Amino acid sequence: MIPKPILSSPLYRLDALSVRWNIDLWIKRDDLIPQWMGGNKVRKNFAILRAACEGRVIPDVLITNGGAESNHARVVALMGAQLDCEVHLVLHGREPVATTAGNSFFYRSAGAATHYVDSHEIGPTIDQLRRRFIERGKNVYVIPGGGHAAEGVEAYAEAVAELPVAPDYIVHASGTGGTQAGLLAGVERQGWHTTVVGVSVARTRQRGIEEIIKLLPDDFSQDRIDFRDEFRFGGYEQYSPELMSFVQSVIRAEGIPLDLTYTGKAMYGLAKLVESGEIDAGSRVVFWHTGGLLNLTSTLS
Amino acid sequence: MIPKPILSSPLYRLDALSVRWNIDLWIKRDDLIPQWMGGNKVRKNFAILRAACEGRVIPDVLITNGGAESNHARVVALMGAQLDCEVHLVLHGREPVATTAGNSFFYRSAGAATHYVDSHEIGPTIDQLRRRFIERGKNVYVIPGGGHAAEGVEAYAEAVAELPVAPDYIVHASGTGGTQAGLLAGVERQGWHTTVVGVSVARTRQRGIEEIIKLLPDDFSQDRIDFRDEFRFGGYEQYSPELMSFVQSVIRAEGIPLDLTYTGKAMYGLAKLVESGEIDAGSRVVFWHTGGLLNLTSTLS
Repeated sequence: MIPKPILSSPLYRLDALSVRWNIDLWIKRDDLIPQWMGGNKVRKNFAILRAACEGRVIPDVLITNGGAESNHARVVALMGAQLDCEVHLVLHGREPVATTAGNSFFYRSAGAATHYVDSHEIGPTIDQLRRRFIERGKNVYVIPGGGHAAEGVEAYAEAVAELPVAPDYIVHASGTGGTQAGLLAGVERQGWHTTVVGVSVARTRQRGIEEIIKLLPDDFSQDRIDFRDEFRFGGYEQYSPELMSFVQSVIRAEGIPLDLTYTGKAMYGLAKLVESGEIDAGSRVVFWHTGGLLNLTSTLS
Repeated sequence: MIPKPILSSPLYRLDALSVRWNIDLWIKRDDLIPQWMGGNKVRKNFAILRAACEGRVIPDVLITNGGAESNHARVVALMGAQLDCEVHLVLHGREPVATTAGNSFFYRSAGAATHYVDSHEIGPTIDQLRRRFIERGKNVYVIPGGGHAAEGVEAYAEAVAELPVAPDYIVHASGTGGTQAGLLAGVERQGWHTTVVGVSVARTRQRGIEEIIKLLPDDFSQDRIDFRDEFRFGGYEQYSPELMSFVQSVIRAEGIPLDLTYTGKAMYGLAKLVESGEIDAGSRVVFWHTGGLLNLTSTLS
């Protein structure tokens, strides 16, 4: 099995932003999880692979999909390399140039095979690969794109227990909803009244909520899913000079990395919710940093 | 004052490389120091600025120098921003393009003023800036390039105490020698017999040792300075396909970042010392990771 990851990420107070926004702001740095270049995909994929390997043989072949600069693809490639699996990544979007030091550098370094395809070819390509390896007698495991699986949700439910006290809010970048579903389940498990705010990096509100609710128990009230789609800056990987300027102001204030695809939008959303008064002065807020320096790298290059 | 940094960086075992090289290999991840993007320059500059501010007013102006993609310049810029200082960086080498997500992105985000000059103009430019601000009645503090100062050495002497037991070897990337001098002083302070191996990233052996000895007490024996210049790959920021391939093999084995300027060369040196038998089988080795993802970014872009 792959080595047990050091998952308990640092939590500390952001003093300058706490003063600026008049809240009690803490940051949970999942980007600093030491192995596999960190981020939320480490928690999710470790849980997925642990379950996949439990009591069974380690898969010969791992297949997953993602964007060309996908954090998830990088983590699967690195974990797969350690498990001595053959890893196949089905990727959409522009094929990165060889000199991009983003996620692509790492999944290539890990020796993963890459298949760059159009979005509509993702499903058929995965099926084709799976069939090919099964015919050869291989043990194949397909990891859902983004680590969007029950084990990934459970990983974030467990991660909430790393917080020493209940915050009033947890704010994070919300993509396909697995992290948010996990944080909601974790808060419920702790018996806390924490509001989990997911700042959408791509999806509209309706779509986002629909996907998150699917990952939660049947009796989970939809009203508790706070998924904000007004800080998307036009959609996935889109950003404006205003977002860039905001991200730089946070780098300046706190010396922390934010990217323009995920965490920058989430922190911007937090700033706006404080500005509008929706998050009260004095609130204890945990900003859950889900990773992203490599997203910055690939966005800017 | 700037917020107290979280300096006690993670230490954990590299199981796959331990098996591969038949040693007991641990890694000290100073690249994961949470604030200011981590790395050895955080330890050094925090110590320097703490001393500079002690019992005195905070400087109005900070001046320092480095290469165009200097880790040191990035840290001074970020710390200076938090101290509300005007920061001037005197930088040599090719001016990075705006889209490089390396150290330059962060020192620019921090709002530092940059002065790109030829190497021989570094000293005169610093003098000129200093005089200009002193004439205006400003409190000016000049930080030596690389954080190459007694406080920086002391910071690494203190860092050694974060290791729970004495290793047989500490291996790290050695540039201008401040980190190595600090590690040597720290080992002495602990009363350990640990050999500190500095793998040169630029300097020849003779030059490297001369500079390190200057940073140590007069009675420190030169024989104890182990500075290796045979793994430089032609000099600073130079690398070969062999080094790239080696770095990728470590990424694959352990899921950790190494760059081609500093840590990649140091790890390569370690591998060679094990291969040659100079580092015995079973030795307990701490690889001290001094930072570098941003070096990889800027090297590859």
